Amino acid sequence: MNIRLYNARILTMEKGRDIFRGEVWVKNDKIVYVATNEELKAIDSKKLPRITWDYELDCNDDLLMPGLKDAHTHSGMTFLRSYADDLPLHEWLYEKVFPYEAKLTPEDIYELTRLAVMEYVTGGITSIFDMYLTPDTIAEACMDTGMRCVLCGNVNDHTSTPEKMSDEYQRLNNVSPLITYQLGFHAEYTCSKDLIYRISSLAHRFRAPVYCHMSETEAEVAACREKYGMSPAFFLDSMGIFEFGGGVFHGVVLDDHDIDLLRMRRVSVITNPASNLKLASGIAPIAKLDRKKINVAIGTDGAASNNALDMFREMYLTSALSKIYEKDAASLDAVRVLRMATVHGAKAMKIKADVLAKGKLADIILINMHEPNMQPENNIVKNLVYSGNKSNVRMTMVGGKVLYKDGTYNIGVSPETVYKNCNEIADRILRQ
Amino acid sequence: MNIRLYNARILTMEKGRDIFRGEVWVKNDKIVYVATNEELKAIDSKKLPRITWDYELDCNDDLLMPGLKDAHTHSGMTFLRSYADDLPLHEWLYEKVFPYEAKLTPEDIYELTRLAVMEYVTGGITSIFDMYLTPDTIAEACMDTGMRCVLCGNVNDHTSTPEKMSDEYQRLNNVSPLITYQLGFHAEYTCSKDLIYRISSLAHRFRAPVYCHMSETEAEVAACREKYGMSPAFFLDSMGIFEFGGGVFHGVVLDDHDIDLLRMRRVSVITNPASNLKLASGIAPIAKLDRKKINVAIGTDGAASNNALDMFREMYLTSALSKIYEKDAASLDAVRVLRMATVHGAKAMKIKADVLAKGKLADIILINMHEPNMQPENNIVKNLVYSGNKSNVRMTMVGGKVLYKDGTYNIGVSPETVYKNCNEIADRILRQ
Repeated sequence: MNIRLYNARILTMEKGRDIFRGEVWVKNDKIVYVATNEELKAIDSKKLPRITWDYELDCNDDLLMPGLKDAHTHSGMTFLRSYADDLPLHEWLYEKVFPYEAKLTPEDIYELTRLAVMEYVTGGITSIFDMYLTPDTIAEACMDTGMRCVLCGNVNDHTSTPEKMSDEYQRLNNVSPLITYQLGFHAEYTCSKDLIYRISSLAHRFRAPVYCHMSETEAEVAACREKYGMSPAFFLDSMGIFEFGGGVFHGVVLDDHDIDLLRMRRVSVITNPASNLKLASGIAPIAKLDRKKINVAIGTDGAASNNALDMFREMYLTSALSKIYEKDAASLDAVRVLRMATVHGAKAMKIKADVLAKGKLADIILINMHEPNMQPENNIVKNLVYSGNKSNVRMTMVGGKVLYKDGTYNIGVSPETVYKNCNEIADRILRQ
Repeated sequence: MNIRLYNARILTMEKGRDIFRGEVWVKNDKIVYVATNEELKAIDSKKLPRITWDYELDCNDDLLMPGLKDAHTHSGMTFLRSYADDLPLHEWLYEKVFPYEAKLTPEDIYELTRLAVMEYVTGGITSIFDMYLTPDTIAEACMDTGMRCVLCGNVNDHTSTPEKMSDEYQRLNNVSPLITYQLGFHAEYTCSKDLIYRISSLAHRFRAPVYCHMSETEAEVAACREKYGMSPAFFLDSMGIFEFGGGVFHGVVLDDHDIDLLRMRRVSVITNPASNLKLASGIAPIAKLDRKKINVAIGTDGAASNNALDMFREMYLTSALSKIYEKDAASLDAVRVLRMATVHGAKAMKIKADVLAKGKLADIILINMHEPNMQPENNIVKNLVYSGNKSNVRMTMVGGKVLYKDGTYNIGVSPETVYKNCNEIADRILRQ
């Protein structure tokens, strides 16, 4: 497959490179050429082999950029959207989430993940870092729809085991170019010390990074200090969890020692601002983490706690909340936030889709500049982060395949089928 | 003009009324009939005069509801979008806003308002409360595009005068069914005491409510206390400003005495959460105001300080920020917030477009339920506020006229013309 995206403005997200007019060429699932119009004119066409294009897209002077990375989500939680609202984290989790999740079948999670994928692609999200109950059917849903997914282990005292995760790690890292798998567990407060030790042993065996929820609320951190005499970061580090890096989801309640430790261990922090607001958990010290050179990425968290799976909203919130948190309107500008949602996300998820450049995965989105919220064009990146919206997403391509374009899906199933099935699942689990 | 909107789900926003399936009939600019499908079936059609429909819309089981009221905006500020960012209020206003605004012509503001109207209608906003420099050309832009606009007087020490406002009040309240005008001034800190006294005299002459920015930042309140020995609310009240009610924009820094005073004077508070974040002004105590039975409405503020003119974002923020402000995930649920964005907005703006019911203005929007972020349908109102998005707006009708439907505008001008003109204005003013 040879694909040509032309008549575009291009934001590669390479450091220091401004937006330019040009083309992006894709072969199969990778980018093979990114060029300015000037560079293209300078090519002596006689010396080139003639390329037959399988697909050409006139981008209408709209903006091509790397797809957004949703670096923390639980896709299968879509069945709980707008069901378990207006509750604090602990009550929400133990009374409104865990009991219903126990009723989910692997097939349910397949279908609920397809619904989430539809939401991702309408919002320009080209890859997700998904921690949920049945990695096999999540992988299946993503392969069937064409979504790129980094699966995250989800061990806790009641769900999965290090042995099961070991099997998944070896198996699901080799099923499809769209799927990778990273070791992970739910959180310190849902895993016994022995279990965390066994997870750490597994990480040492594979020499692999580990990911988990951490320091999401003050109550969680206080309980950990009470139990282990240490903050969650120091406790987990004492168990060797961060020996090979990894990442923590949320990271709302972090003191300076925690931050220095995470930096030293090269642990990413994945922030989930909408979820942290919704559950009244707090505001994460993102600008400070960024100044301390921690790799900060951004995620939506699940639909039960957000309730949208919309990285435009998360980008906006990451910047806007930082301004209020630091009482400084200059805190965390649009450029930094857009890097978090693209380049830093790819780094946290360990996928080669950070920038638009030769050899990178063809995870590309087209942003409609011909909409009122993107005009006038004083500053396109600021327009994207401060007034941009998922309604500006014209096209979402993952691994060289267009999954969504101008309101139409190309994910192997009709939207109405997915809606019908997901409403049936919600009815069965929540109302029977 | 007889209009029939059928095969719809309907959220009238009348108190205690659930969503039902039915039809809305419109004659000219008003709603003449709202009925459930059961009521329609029960009608003996032989006894009714036959209606010839000028326009019929099959709503595809999507949701009809009252349009959103943007109860505080400065439409003409679109030229500054993404130009003056990342600055605190005072510096932003005096260095990046006032100097450039001084260069605007009335014709510029006409064009910049048309751009804003495009953004409003794509986001389901059917009326705006607009305070800006040239009420005449704002009115003209709204009449020409079909937008409903409540103009707000904008007197301050350098702009407009009570005499000019008196003339505008009498003239612009009688130009079009789409336009009304309320007395207003910029803020205590931009008006001399003598000027405020003269505005108050005018309000007493017309027995009319008055609107202004108030208590937006801690610095503003501290300076007012320093100058007058009172908070802005008490100072303005001492000048008789609130004798006939009215409203204050922002209301971030309000103590219990201020709140009791505003309640007693029946003054609305119009909150602008995105702007307050962006300028690091703070979070308004919205849930408390609501509990104290103050009429809280919601506005976007101008594009220079937001930067989007998107009431879905404002609704989401109003609820989400309240949860973090009160450290209570149950604070300010979706139903209250949706009332603020519709019913309370209409009340603050004094327009008869609060609910879908016979005799009300036909300011109606159609929300696409067949989108992934609105599924499953556990709770439609929560979906609207917590995961809804301007991309869900299928149709925006103002005064019985469809201004926007499925991506197409009907506002008397082509989008590309407006974009071109607005970019030229921005270039001329900001870069020449």
